[in-house]
Amino acid sequence: MTAQTTQELAEPYLRRVLGTAGLDVEYVRGHGDTLYYRKGDEEVPVLDLVGGYGSTLLGHSNPELVAYARELLAAQTPIHAQFSRHPYANDVAADLVRIIQRETGSEEPFFAIFANSGAEAIEAAMKHAEFERHVRLEQLRAAVGVSIEAVRAAVAEGSVAAAEAEALIADVTAHNEALATSPPLFLTPVGSFHGKLAASTQLTYNPIYRAVFSALAAQARFVPLDEPGAIDEIVRSESRWLHDLALEGGRPTVVQRPFPGFCAVVLEPILGEGGIHELPAAFVHDVQRVAGELDIPVVVDEVQSGMGRTGAFLASSHLGLRGDYYTLAKSLGGGIAKAAVLLVRASRYLNDFEMMHSSTFAKDSYSCLIAGRVLQMLEAGDGEIYRSAGARGAELRQALQELQREFPGVLKEVRGRGLMLGLEFCEQAHSPSPVLRQLHASGFFGYFLSGYLLREHHIRTFPTSSAVHTLRFEPSAFITTADITRLVGALRDLCTQIAGTDGHRLAPVG
Amino acid sequence: MTAQTTQELAEPYLRRVLGTAGLDVEYVRGHGDTLYYRKGDEEVPVLDLVGGYGSTLLGHSNPELVAYARELLAAQTPIHAQFSRHPYANDVAADLVRIIQRETGSEEPFFAIFANSGAEAIEAAMKHAEFERHVRLEQLRAAVGVSIEAVRAAVAEGSVAAAEAEALIADVTAHNEALATSPPLFLTPVGSFHGKLAASTQLTYNPIYRAVFSALAAQARFVPLDEPGAIDEIVRSESRWLHDLALEGGRPTVVQRPFPGFCAVVLEPILGEGGIHELPAAFVHDVQRVAGELDIPVVVDEVQSGMGRTGAFLASSHLGLRGDYYTLAKSLGGGIAKAAVLLVRASRYLNDFEMMHSSTFAKDSYSCLIAGRVLQMLEAGDGEIYRSAGARGAELRQALQELQREFPGVLKEVRGRGLMLGLEFCEQAHSPSPVLRQLHASGFFGYFLSGYLLREHHIRTFPTSSAVHTLRFEPSAFITTADITRLVGALRDLCTQIAGTDGHRLAPVG
Repeated sequence: MTAQTTQELAEPYLRRVLGTAGLDVEYVRGHGDTLYYRKGDEEVPVLDLVGGYGSTLLGHSNPELVAYARELLAAQTPIHAQFSRHPYANDVAADLVRIIQRETGSEEPFFAIFANSGAEAIEAAMKHAEFERHVRLEQLRAAVGVSIEAVRAAVAEGSVAAAEAEALIADVTAHNEALATSPPLFLTPVGSFHGKLAASTQLTYNPIYRAVFSALAAQARFVPLDEPGAIDEIVRSESRWLHDLALEGGRPTVVQRPFPGFCAVVLEPILGEGGIHELPAAFVHDVQRVAGELDIPVVVDEVQSGMGRTGAFLASSHLGLRGDYYTLAKSLGGGIAKAAVLLVRASRYLNDFEMMHSSTFAKDSYSCLIAGRVLQMLEAGDGEIYRSAGARGAELRQALQELQREFPGVLKEVRGRGLMLGLEFCEQAHSPSPVLRQLHASGFFGYFLSGYLLREHHIRTFPTSSAVHTLRFEPSAFITTADITRLVGALRDLCTQIAGTDGHRLAPVG
Repeated sequence: MTAQTTQELAEPYLRRVLGTAGLDVEYVRGHGDTLYYRKGDEEVPVLDLVGGYGSTLLGHSNPELVAYARELLAAQTPIHAQFSRHPYANDVAADLVRIIQRETGSEEPFFAIFANSGAEAIEAAMKHAEFERHVRLEQLRAAVGVSIEAVRAAVAEGSVAAAEAEALIADVTAHNEALATSPPLFLTPVGSFHGKLAASTQLTYNPIYRAVFSALAAQARFVPLDEPGAIDEIVRSESRWLHDLALEGGRPTVVQRPFPGFCAVVLEPILGEGGIHELPAAFVHDVQRVAGELDIPVVVDEVQSGMGRTGAFLASSHLGLRGDYYTLAKSLGGGIAKAAVLLVRASRYLNDFEMMHSSTFAKDSYSCLIAGRVLQMLEAGDGEIYRSAGARGAELRQALQELQREFPGVLKEVRGRGLMLGLEFCEQAHSPSPVLRQLHASGFFGYFLSGYLLREHHIRTFPTSSAVHTLRFEPSAFITTADITRLVGALRDLCTQIAGTDGHRLAPVG
């Protein structure tokens, strides 16, 4: 039906903000790395380097996937068949495990819990890690219960005074009870992004997305990337202690046991929304060591970086980072379906989680079958897509680095790997140009750069969402050398605007 | 690719549990109210009354929606076009608002935030409500700041002793700081279900889904449905107070101000997973009054009950229950797409939420356009679908009630409205039959009933997930009188098995 109202009701404020940068166009068609908008009777092609925030490694409307999706629909594949056999989900899990085992050189299987979005997969990971912590905590509390019974036995034997014992028991019990219900802590890098649901947004560093909601869910401690040992200091300062009782020299005494207050380390191999920063080797080493010491899972969030984008299936493979859990989404759905999954290492997997967690929309045949086809396409030709992502990415990275050397006062750094690249622009807080100073002060600097590239060059890119001076480039594996040349030309013009004019052509529009 | 492993990796434990009830069949096709599994070369039709937990009001593989979805895919409709114009999202919002305004007799618009699942929509609601609370809290704290300045001014004038004043100010500040960062509380009915993400699962009554995760997120207080005034008692007992300063008779004195500790009331008009209980009128009245007194939003969760299933678009319409927020999902996606939305009344809507919350997969053209077509289909023929859901629902309800009178020792109660019906079976804890006592003790009673109906009658139904003695019936609006007759016949046989045999045919299989 045609809406009778002209009032905008779906995020009108966001649309106005996008409008000031000239970004509020309507895309009517997508194919490969091209999105089209309409101008009069014509379709205007735009080279898309946002790629659905990493969802279109196989391009928009990938023909093979579109044909397959249409077949599935025509065949009346049952999308809603909860609580039945889902062999297609099992196939996806088996394929993922085989690929991960190959890349990590491990033989341990992982179990799969499906979800509808990357954020949902992260929340499932948080829940499973909390379940692990809960089990450990209950074991500890049971051990304390045994100690208490031993003290009471000593009282019964007359070797310990009842009043003294019961007072200690009451103290210990009250202390432990308060601690047991206190929220756990997560560890995650400064600059992290793990989604925006009520709990996952607390693992997302950007205070704009997190601070207002901090009373809603358990908190994270954010570990700086470039301070070796920082994680140890955080763990030390946040350590808490359960109280236990021991009979020392026949008298009941309170002893401390480490409280399992940390739940998991959650991290992206390449921080995406935080500005495309690959984790430093020393950081990875610290994290794996500390997670081992605390016996907590390392959750590797490959929602954006995974699925082959960096030249390997997992971006963490390049870093030697080994996950106890992995999360995947975005390109898992092939740019067509909403597919996401959490994988949990068999040795940490708790069967009962399956009775506690589910989703009406998840684990459906449609998204699983499409995910399965995506994995097939990635693995075809002995990994041609991975190689292409690696090679095209290296080509684009080199071109961006050359540009950076050409405009050292405008471009600060090129970062990332494969087709997950970031180009950081220098801050313009003290630019001689009032326009550039104003764009900087708006907090939307990168969006104005994006608006310029769209208006003048029909190129779509965005800043990373928590680091607005870094433009992101996440095209499909089918990006061509011609596309790269065109992008670099457009960026050269953009740099020239910043370096050589007062920047008025970047200014807000409308 | 073909999986090389034969190990089950996607929820193998759940599959085994389903297997014991004979429910682990693989459905290969769905159409209307029928799901098909394969037996040899044949397709065996199963009458499906689970209906994707409420997602298939328009049936499985609705032909009009399938054709439309296939068209959208063929037309290369851009699924990933984040941060651009989404007129299709706006159309869905406008249509929803028009329908809700018609049903509730209101003229106030609602703003729409899109999501990928019902649970995600609930989490968005929790976040928006918390944002409202945050704003109110900051206003209060600013007012306290003004009071503190007034006291300091009095110190400067010499009318108040500095030491006394600063001690009070330090006390007040510390008290308020601790309170401000303490988690809020939600109010929701006993028996509620609002999803299983890390925060939303805390609004879900069933302790199996909630208890292990209670340290992860803000808590709910659960209000009994049938105790008028219970909500007032909860609010009273959970009330907390901010400290403010006043100059009384020239001396600074601590005064208390109500702390906004409650975030929202969240409720389903008909408790779904809790056993299909429509909210009593007195409960609705209490909730609306208390929410008004606390100035917190009433979040009406229509994820399962909405979209016309009860004979009106909103199940809450029948109850005179008015939401400040509404959540919709399940049938919004027409049984094909993963679509969900949160609607927030304009007078409570906070623009800045749009800059804080988003999802890569949400607000996409595909799910929005399908949701738009679903709304068109619901509204067509002057609401023929609503009338059909109401009429077929009344027919089924009456047939179930007659059956209940026929088997008063087996069937306890028929509940619900329209095509959201529940049939509660009597508890078998003290049955003379050991088999029935064992099924009861397993905690999966209803699943064994479901297994029997599937094996013997090719009928698919499930218990509600938190009340396993209640079977659910949520077919499409196209269910026929013949289907209803067939269902009732199968249920009569099931009741006869329970009443007239030792129940051995219901026993675990395999």
